[in-house]
Amino acid sequence: MKEDQARKRVVVEAVTPEIDGGLFPIKRVVGEKVQVEADILVDGHDLLSSVLLYRKEEEKEWSAAVMEPLVNDRWRGFFRVTEIGNYIYTLRAWVDRFKTWRRDLEKRITAGQEVSMNVRMGMQLIEDAIPRCKHEVAKILRQKADQIRGEKNMEKKIALALEEDLAELMSLHAERRFITSYDKELKVIVDREKARFSAWYEMFPRSCADNAGNHGTIKDCEARLPYIAEMGFDVLYLPPIHPIGITHRKGKNNSPEAGPKDPGSPWAIGSDEGGHKSIHPQLGNLQDFQRLLQKARAHGIEMALDLAFQCSPDHPYVKEHPHWFRHRPDGTVQYAENPPKKYEDIYPINFETDQGQELFAELKSVVLFWIEQGVRIFRVDNPHTKPFRFWEWLLAEVKRDYPEVIFLSEAFTRPKVMYRLAKLGFTQSYTYFAWRNTKWEITQYFSELIQSQVREFFRPNLWLNTPDILTEYLQMGGRPAFMARVVLAATLGASYGIYGPAFELCEDRAKEYGSEEYLDSEKYEIRRWNLDDSRSLKEFIARVNRVRRENQALQSDWSLRFHPVENEHLLCYTKNTDDQSNIVLTVVNLDPHHTHGGWLQVPAEELGLEPGQPFQVHDLLSNARFLWHGPRNYVELNPRICPAYVFRLRRRVRTERDFDYFM
Amino acid sequence: MKEDQARKRVVVEAVTPEIDGGLFPIKRVVGEKVQVEADILVDGHDLLSSVLLYRKEEEKEWSAAVMEPLVNDRWRGFFRVTEIGNYIYTLRAWVDRFKTWRRDLEKRITAGQEVSMNVRMGMQLIEDAIPRCKHEVAKILRQKADQIRGEKNMEKKIALALEEDLAELMSLHAERRFITSYDKELKVIVDREKARFSAWYEMFPRSCADNAGNHGTIKDCEARLPYIAEMGFDVLYLPPIHPIGITHRKGKNNSPEAGPKDPGSPWAIGSDEGGHKSIHPQLGNLQDFQRLLQKARAHGIEMALDLAFQCSPDHPYVKEHPHWFRHRPDGTVQYAENPPKKYEDIYPINFETDQGQELFAELKSVVLFWIEQGVRIFRVDNPHTKPFRFWEWLLAEVKRDYPEVIFLSEAFTRPKVMYRLAKLGFTQSYTYFAWRNTKWEITQYFSELIQSQVREFFRPNLWLNTPDILTEYLQMGGRPAFMARVVLAATLGASYGIYGPAFELCEDRAKEYGSEEYLDSEKYEIRRWNLDDSRSLKEFIARVNRVRRENQALQSDWSLRFHPVENEHLLCYTKNTDDQSNIVLTVVNLDPHHTHGGWLQVPAEELGLEPGQPFQVHDLLSNARFLWHGPRNYVELNPRICPAYVFRLRRRVRTERDFDYFM
Repeated sequence: MKEDQARKRVVVEAVTPEIDGGLFPIKRVVGEKVQVEADILVDGHDLLSSVLLYRKEEEKEWSAAVMEPLVNDRWRGFFRVTEIGNYIYTLRAWVDRFKTWRRDLEKRITAGQEVSMNVRMGMQLIEDAIPRCKHEVAKILRQKADQIRGEKNMEKKIALALEEDLAELMSLHAERRFITSYDKELKVIVDREKARFSAWYEMFPRSCADNAGNHGTIKDCEARLPYIAEMGFDVLYLPPIHPIGITHRKGKNNSPEAGPKDPGSPWAIGSDEGGHKSIHPQLGNLQDFQRLLQKARAHGIEMALDLAFQCSPDHPYVKEHPHWFRHRPDGTVQYAENPPKKYEDIYPINFETDQGQELFAELKSVVLFWIEQGVRIFRVDNPHTKPFRFWEWLLAEVKRDYPEVIFLSEAFTRPKVMYRLAKLGFTQSYTYFAWRNTKWEITQYFSELIQSQVREFFRPNLWLNTPDILTEYLQMGGRPAFMARVVLAATLGASYGIYGPAFELCEDRAKEYGSEEYLDSEKYEIRRWNLDDSRSLKEFIARVNRVRRENQALQSDWSLRFHPVENEHLLCYTKNTDDQSNIVLTVVNLDPHHTHGGWLQVPAEELGLEPGQPFQVHDLLSNARFLWHGPRNYVELNPRICPAYVFRLRRRVRTERDFDYFM
Repeated sequence: MKEDQARKRVVVEAVTPEIDGGLFPIKRVVGEKVQVEADILVDGHDLLSSVLLYRKEEEKEWSAAVMEPLVNDRWRGFFRVTEIGNYIYTLRAWVDRFKTWRRDLEKRITAGQEVSMNVRMGMQLIEDAIPRCKHEVAKILRQKADQIRGEKNMEKKIALALEEDLAELMSLHAERRFITSYDKELKVIVDREKARFSAWYEMFPRSCADNAGNHGTIKDCEARLPYIAEMGFDVLYLPPIHPIGITHRKGKNNSPEAGPKDPGSPWAIGSDEGGHKSIHPQLGNLQDFQRLLQKARAHGIEMALDLAFQCSPDHPYVKEHPHWFRHRPDGTVQYAENPPKKYEDIYPINFETDQGQELFAELKSVVLFWIEQGVRIFRVDNPHTKPFRFWEWLLAEVKRDYPEVIFLSEAFTRPKVMYRLAKLGFTQSYTYFAWRNTKWEITQYFSELIQSQVREFFRPNLWLNTPDILTEYLQMGGRPAFMARVVLAATLGASYGIYGPAFELCEDRAKEYGSEEYLDSEKYEIRRWNLDDSRSLKEFIARVNRVRRENQALQSDWSLRFHPVENEHLLCYTKNTDDQSNIVLTVVNLDPHHTHGGWLQVPAEELGLEPGQPFQVHDLLSNARFLWHGPRNYVELNPRICPAYVFRLRRRVRTERDFDYFM
């Protein structure tokens, strides 16, 4: 061992956030804080100093933030990310001799000891510092040293030596020869704000035609934009818009034989008319698509496309790149299956092909093609059936040049696989939310997502339904179930999504009892929806989305806290901004069939509410206002009227007649 | 990215045990298991196989143990360490094509599908395997393939293809081209058994003289050996036996001025008569010491020496190596201090010296010197005041050639520093046990030590007292307090220690109220102890240590579990062997002043006791036997008789008249 190694006496360990030993980045959006903690230790009794260093990945110069000690050798500091892209952070720590000397001198003086020798030792530390400082600082230190030396009165001498500004200067210019650098540089992926806060609407373009029986077009989608914008969604996601295969095309309700007019599943991508870079001719062309992008933007809506890396048997790749597919002993291409289920209208891509380089380049070119059209959001179909390393590579490649791109991972699979995909770089992820219905289930699941380290890399996007998923809760609970669930999704999650118009029209008919498939699923046929149906929740959803936009507390997830209610059917939680200027308390009746009431416990003090003073709760859904006294309050919810309260809490400002809502 | 990287589809993560991302080794003793778990993931639906690889550090060939899947993508395997030294372990995992194919074939058959094509695909997998197998195996596979191909009857053909032995062969010889190797090789330090199970006795040799006023010698220690052996201790630790400095020598009760006859503190090491490699002339010489080592061994006792790397002002190092010390502006050497406290009889070594290389070599030579005399256990004084990297280097250097050496870390300092020292290689560590007296304190502390990852690297040695520490509990509680504490230490900890004869003679006089210092401390004067005092706990301690030797459950820590008792003064816990053939249930009355009784809850089923059947509890301290029915039982302890039960639980073997204690 080199002796200098032993002179690096400080140890930095147990750094948070740090994902899998630094193997994966954490995620933030522009403007957010990165709060870093570490255990920082040294032998003996010396005092330490530590800084958090950070920079944009492509820059060379570090910025520094001071780390402050907490308790039990734990330290904390933070920085704010201000630009999209990647940031790097790490730590430095060192024995701070002057700080130690100063503390000890104070102790000696308190104990009434003679300290002239100790003052001389402090002088020596200042003298030692001078050569390593820039001219300006060296000059000041020289003056200080002379001043202390010149002072004859011991009390005044000591007072000079203990001056705060001297201590600060000395700390800034401490001996760094044996500084400890934390052995890892950790990464932050910084996304734009939509990565954190977004409301998604999924819709089949082919069902958008005005006239019954017609195949909807991209142009028809334009006409639908005001409707979507009025509901308050800001991302419009379209299932694949590419040509659909003929061979083994599926018929209505997933029947193995398609009728002559059946349009097939949009996920059976590719035909003579093209593949992943083409638009299905019945939908329109690239010009139509670009126009839709522009029109959507004008409505505050961003388009998201589907990346489904699989092919119909008629996809051009099948002929042009047979090696990208598995072949069976009889020479035919292996179709998709999950034995004993077969999906003969789909050929999965064989990512273990010997021609991986070409394959990867082509798939990347698909993403770049749509980026060139103006798309910046992709919903990725079944990423868990493609190799992890492929995604790690692809997402890094794309985000290097287009850091503003958002990828949503549609992996409904085992939890650790979902987390792994998020770690590899997916911006947002589908969750199990659709199947979490009871108080216990929701509390457990969101504690895992939002109160554990998972939140550093996994951004939940809470989907209420999808073309594949009509949950039992929605099938059984009627309109109140749809209302309760949309409030939950929109307030538990800063990002959520619905598949419409099925959702807002409360479509609850499943293909059969025990199935989560929709009856007459749009995956296999064109549907016409009556958007003006009296059951429609469009206005309710519009209100919910407006509440989200107007309350910053609902625009991020980390502040989520659950609170006790004495009724198993009532769920209560708050979100708040860091400065507690916006606090939203939501109560949802999870039972869509019966009225429930119960006493809930608001942690008033934690939320910055003055103890013993009344506070106002303002239900942003009904506009009702209540005056609550103390933490314990009664609520009651009739699901047939509205199954939820979304209260804004307003604290007392000066007197009981002077709440801030008067202002 | 190389395409082959993407073909390594399997991911191995969240491996346990793994300390700080593999930066530090775990610890075991010979014969113990290393149970390894990992999350092992792959995209899609393929089945995996995984092996745990392990080897002695100096060997090249890996041994392999099969990893078995648990739930939620978690896998587990284990190996046993059989020799002292270092072991290495890591993991491999791969997509197992044949296993996947076999599972899918079974599913298809269950679903009644036509499978001839699938059988052909399985045949292909066998054919592909042949070229990568050794001749013998290749021959068998060839035969199997021919046999399957030759069989005309499809049912029989399938049965052949699904044969277990074929599956095993194919798994053993699976395609390893795209195998995933876990990216870390993790280390195990394997110690001898005493590292885990030891009973220490600390004693000042100079107080061992037969005649009052005489300075005890190493020879006198010999005479004390039968006494120590009868009490059942197997490590005898002596404070420093080196020459003691004269300058600033401390007098009785730590007075700054020593009288002419005061012997000084043994930790003020070094004088004209020598330093760390010398023996204090009044104690004897090296021959005496070697004789003591031999005699001790004959009594089943191993000697432990103190490594206190610090010097008196008269130590030869001070003249010979002035650069190993800090100097004050007036040219004097800086004495030890923790402002405002001063320790002028001690010069700390300056580990930041420019001459670190020489210093380190010299300190290592001190350890080797005593190893050459036959010492294999060192108690290290205040390791937390020397650099971490020094210990990391020293312990590795010594253990490379002498892996049987045991180092006990005497660091009473902040918890993370204590853990760091253990990670760096200390075999055992002092703990906060002496100050943990209430049920809550003990339960919390031992849960941290024994039920968390801490147990992988930190082996607690529970000291009841030391020459510096006479706890308030012992000062106030009288003889019952000493009895309760020794039972706690000896049954909670597989390793524990006492400083005697102060402990067994229930010495409870502190220097002053509020101090933990002994009155008339042996650190500063020679004491004479009446070993035959009627208060002596020597027989009680002998019984406790016999119980430890006779009950394997008490010889390791990991099985420790606390159980509820409905009385805050009663603490109840069990330890058991892995096979549950030995189960010890201890109940201690923590209140040394009053009798307490309460209902306790024995987790009978967890401990392998037949539910609904009576079981015998045999108090190994009093030899009383009770028959208990069911998990809930009443106990009562009068501290003036005995403050503890140490029950051996004996399960029913056949009938209620046929317990195993009849055998």
